[in-house]
Amino acid sequence: MKKLTALDMGFIHLERRNQPLHVAYLTLLRPPADASEDFARTLVARLRSYASPLPPFNQRLDSRLGKAFWVEDPEFDIEQHVIHLALPRPGTMQQLLAMVSRMHASHLDRAYPLWRTYIIEGIEGGQIAVYSKVHHAVADGVAGTRLFLRSMSLTPNEILPPPWAMPPQGRRERPSLLAAPVDGVVKLANRFGGAFEHVPAIYHELRKSMRERRAGHPDSISGSDAPASILNLPISASRRYLARSYPLARIKAAGRALGCTVNDVMLAMCSHALRQYLVDQQALPAEPLIAGVPMSTRRDRSDVGNQISFLLANLGTHIADPAERLRVIKASVEHSKARYALMKPGAILGYAAAQLAPGLANMLFAPKRGHLAFNLVISNVPGPRSPLYWQGCAVEGMYPVSVLADGMALNITASSRVDTLDFGVLACRRSLPKVESLMDYLEDGLEDIERLARMTIAVGKPVALGETAG
Amino acid sequence: MKKLTALDMGFIHLERRNQPLHVAYLTLLRPPADASEDFARTLVARLRSYASPLPPFNQRLDSRLGKAFWVEDPEFDIEQHVIHLALPRPGTMQQLLAMVSRMHASHLDRAYPLWRTYIIEGIEGGQIAVYSKVHHAVADGVAGTRLFLRSMSLTPNEILPPPWAMPPQGRRERPSLLAAPVDGVVKLANRFGGAFEHVPAIYHELRKSMRERRAGHPDSISGSDAPASILNLPISASRRYLARSYPLARIKAAGRALGCTVNDVMLAMCSHALRQYLVDQQALPAEPLIAGVPMSTRRDRSDVGNQISFLLANLGTHIADPAERLRVIKASVEHSKARYALMKPGAILGYAAAQLAPGLANMLFAPKRGHLAFNLVISNVPGPRSPLYWQGCAVEGMYPVSVLADGMALNITASSRVDTLDFGVLACRRSLPKVESLMDYLEDGLEDIERLARMTIAVGKPVALGETAG
Repeated sequence: MKKLTALDMGFIHLERRNQPLHVAYLTLLRPPADASEDFARTLVARLRSYASPLPPFNQRLDSRLGKAFWVEDPEFDIEQHVIHLALPRPGTMQQLLAMVSRMHASHLDRAYPLWRTYIIEGIEGGQIAVYSKVHHAVADGVAGTRLFLRSMSLTPNEILPPPWAMPPQGRRERPSLLAAPVDGVVKLANRFGGAFEHVPAIYHELRKSMRERRAGHPDSISGSDAPASILNLPISASRRYLARSYPLARIKAAGRALGCTVNDVMLAMCSHALRQYLVDQQALPAEPLIAGVPMSTRRDRSDVGNQISFLLANLGTHIADPAERLRVIKASVEHSKARYALMKPGAILGYAAAQLAPGLANMLFAPKRGHLAFNLVISNVPGPRSPLYWQGCAVEGMYPVSVLADGMALNITASSRVDTLDFGVLACRRSLPKVESLMDYLEDGLEDIERLARMTIAVGKPVALGETAG
Repeated sequence: MKKLTALDMGFIHLERRNQPLHVAYLTLLRPPADASEDFARTLVARLRSYASPLPPFNQRLDSRLGKAFWVEDPEFDIEQHVIHLALPRPGTMQQLLAMVSRMHASHLDRAYPLWRTYIIEGIEGGQIAVYSKVHHAVADGVAGTRLFLRSMSLTPNEILPPPWAMPPQGRRERPSLLAAPVDGVVKLANRFGGAFEHVPAIYHELRKSMRERRAGHPDSISGSDAPASILNLPISASRRYLARSYPLARIKAAGRALGCTVNDVMLAMCSHALRQYLVDQQALPAEPLIAGVPMSTRRDRSDVGNQISFLLANLGTHIADPAERLRVIKASVEHSKARYALMKPGAILGYAAAQLAPGLANMLFAPKRGHLAFNLVISNVPGPRSPLYWQGCAVEGMYPVSVLADGMALNITASSRVDTLDFGVLACRRSLPKVESLMDYLEDGLEDIERLARMTIAVGKPVALGETAG
């Protein structure tokens, strides 16, 4: 029996009918070349053979005298947690994403440990999909990613236990697989997590931290409101999930030519996509959209101090010219980075809250009640740098599926993986009609940036970013 | 814009995280012999072509000034309501039931019209399953059944629109397909439904009606408590759904020999199954379980007055001897029937409340606060008497999927169909472990009764029912 931390309790209390607070990954697997027709069934049977999970995967919620606890579930039943599904023919990616959208809209039952893993067969081309969800009160996105990565291996022949059966020893012994910044977050979160006994204390700390920052920087972007937009409506309980991979090589090459980071290029892609989508919907605000961006900021070249900031980035969505838009984004991110280079511990909570309960974070970050500090959260989660295998299958995609909240109808989270950036876009199905067009617009945005990069290379200096024009 | 009736409002307000208040049917279809591999996909496409449903299927909830309304959904999207799924190989009935259990646990999104139809392919042997759910506030079990039956035809060549597109004309013009008692319920419910403006009024009426009955009949079964049992625990949000067909010919033959109705035999089958299951679980109460049984009771041979009673039946689960158990059940049902032969209008509400929100009904029927009037609801819904077709497919099973509530962890509903009785059993997955054994025990129970019937025929009089012994 273990008392819930204040933050975990918050995730239980903030959950609503239209606002389930679990996070997930959609992973695409390539079975071995010699796999039989029954491969998925065999995989499910093997996963179910790990029928006695370790904490926290064997714990369910319980409450005594009004307090919430995690207690071991004596009747743990693996069949409730490892589910075997299939797509109807032809098994297109669109069908898979529609299925994930429905699954992500469905609440986890609090009478059981708060996680589930679905193995989905019947995908055109022979891939197998794994949709793995866990409640935020059990693991946040970072901890979940970490654990999932630890259950992966560097060769197809090494088959490790699934996350719920990974012994604590094993959980710690494979740090090389994880990009360092993620470990940094986890360490900081662990150190800081126990310091607060109650949710109100977290609110207080967050508010204080944010107020201090604003006070010290009157010109900061958080001093002004984000514009009202259709991204910030109350949400329905239905989701639309979209996923697509974009080659990191293209993003990096364009970034190098333009003096931009991968993050800058990613934000510019999102900016183009959002602008185009909102134009289609006749709902483009006259003011630029503001993105909340959890980001790792290295203070120097040493390995010691990886820090996480929560930046507010001006997406320049009111600007039609791609070069000018990229310049605005880059300047706004650099301004934020410099200002937040040395983060206070409160920021780590801001990070957690913003990633996991964006509506709450917005309330806390916003300068005035009822106003928005940002329109959406855009994250870039560092993922594996080497090709990985899970249960003997090559990992061919690892797409984050995040959380929405009232007033936060869209989330864009990308996960870098070897040589691609895997984008996962989660939207409220009702607030954002036809949101699937965003994925093509992300590609268009990348092509725009590549065009700028080619122009820059042609003239030998980064004119495209307006450094001479500015 | 249409205000919700008091009863419908009740179903919205009584819905809980662990207690979704929708009802459903699981229907098994046999595609035509010449159906292509793509039959299910073609069926889904045809169903989706009915993209502009008629009321109430195009209406969603809205609230203004604290009052709830049905409003037409201007952005109705058929893809949100007609879903195409597949079972993984081999596609056993067990896999199908596990899938239905998960789907039935999932809430309908109140931002959309409150119904969904799933078409499931990949079933061993080539059947297609349809899982159709609708929120109780939109249609109760009886109205839902009625509408679904009206969309069926007597030949495979006549393809009618699906329920959501069936014009009101068509809804009324095919009365012959419907067993008369169901029409009776619908008519009575329609007549009575509008009489109350508020949920409290319904409570009041129900309480009054129940109190009067008890006062007039001090010896009635409802004067005593049902025993505490594992069927009456708080429930989880997870379900276990079981379905199986039993031949009506066997049930009728045994009933004839023993002087019992189909209902008596059905109750005896349930009684045997429940007793055996509770013995396995070491949880058999010393007192008999009491079933709440919605039942049609004809007052005479005329066609005019079909009436619905809510009977309380002593299931005799404390008795090991099958003959004695059947005698107790039969006597208790006959006693109830005689007493309730002339029903008051309040009973129709009792029927609706008991079928749809059994926990609520129990609260109202019980003699003392915190006590139980009955342990579970067992219903027998009259279904089609001729072989039917839906969308060109023969209907080979039509299993009701009912509702649970805190304190009502099990529901048994059977639907008669031509020459079978299709049992649908819904249980809380957590409260009632290994509940799947009930289905075999129902068969065992029927075999017991057939043995009694053979003995009775052999000696030429119904000694088995203890009429001489009693």
